[in-house]
Amino acid sequence: MTLFTDERLRQQIFFLKEIDNLKHILRQTVLTKDYRQENDAEHSWHLAMLIIVLSEYSNDQSLNVLRTVKMALVHDIVEIDTGDTFCYDTHDAAAKTEREREAAHRIFSQLPKNQAQEFIDLWEEFEEMVTPEARFAAAMDRLQPLLLNFYSEGHAWRNHKVRKNQVIERNQHIKKGSSELWRFAEALINESVRRGYLMDG
Amino acid sequence: MTLFTDERLRQQIFFLKEIDNLKHILRQTVLTKDYRQENDAEHSWHLAMLIIVLSEYSNDQSLNVLRTVKMALVHDIVEIDTGDTFCYDTHDAAAKTEREREAAHRIFSQLPKNQAQEFIDLWEEFEEMVTPEARFAAAMDRLQPLLLNFYSEGHAWRNHKVRKNQVIERNQHIKKGSSELWRFAEALINESVRRGYLMDG
Repeated sequence: MTLFTDERLRQQIFFLKEIDNLKHILRQTVLTKDYRQENDAEHSWHLAMLIIVLSEYSNDQSLNVLRTVKMALVHDIVEIDTGDTFCYDTHDAAAKTEREREAAHRIFSQLPKNQAQEFIDLWEEFEEMVTPEARFAAAMDRLQPLLLNFYSEGHAWRNHKVRKNQVIERNQHIKKGSSELWRFAEALINESVRRGYLMDG
Repeated sequence: MTLFTDERLRQQIFFLKEIDNLKHILRQTVLTKDYRQENDAEHSWHLAMLIIVLSEYSNDQSLNVLRTVKMALVHDIVEIDTGDTFCYDTHDAAAKTEREREAAHRIFSQLPKNQAQEFIDLWEEFEEMVTPEARFAAAMDRLQPLLLNFYSEGHAWRNHKVRKNQVIERNQHIKKGSSELWRFAEALINESVRRGYLMDG
């Protein structure tokens, strides 16, 4: 068949077909309207929107928004192979990172070499959380489920019997991306306890 | 309650909460794995990925990729109010645009003024399909469902008894964004007819 006359384009289209599967990876967080579980593709879109709308609060005022958005759109693709891990499940984090690294290489290596390397680098950069873009992307990646948890009356928190101190500990790196949004996140967490969405202590 | 001490941030968070509802707007296109209907949030993420991976094929080599990605992420948000219209349903397109314009104003006006205007402008720019960014975003917005249709063996085409000539007519503006990807799309359409995914004529 003559569909692909160009090997580079074939690789790109096969990759774009494979990542359709991110729409099947379910998270613990639920949507605010009907409490169904969110999937990773929806989450990645919502996360990119948080980055675009809230970038003015980045600690680093020279943030490269396109790099940050790209990182957000790409960072969960590894979960096509590994599945989603609930963020309060801290069991064996090193093994998780190793599995995700293997997944990044398998999935992104389907792209032409220069793009494969770019995406693997973006994924590594996100995980390392050192550059301003990675810090802000990681901060928004934590704020997005906080918002969904708050507006679903703590649905996932209740299901997993999560406590305030766990939420603080797990999310405080938001302040590395944005001190201002961390202050807001703390207010949101306190209000969640006050309303009974989240257990104190 | 003291959750929001800043009116600007309150507007931004309320907007980010409202657009959670885009995850409930179903499209006619189905996913390649289990043929469930795709929703607009998943579609917007996938579309942004097409733009990032395929931007080298843009007719305009000086494409601003961030503007194009932003347009892609934002352009379907109006459908929270209007719902999705199947692209082969051409009934009353003017009324549809008017309803979408009203929706753009209602939804984006929840943001602080400068951002509201930016998003309304991005939506208008996408609809007008004149700038290189709008042309490439619109081209990828057509290529994405073509790919899903092909890899789901023409599921939505068969459901709606769509014919080849309709697909050609509806999608040929892909060439305004990328002549090269339009050649690929034509090959995909012809292969779809050959395999029986799409009716000839």
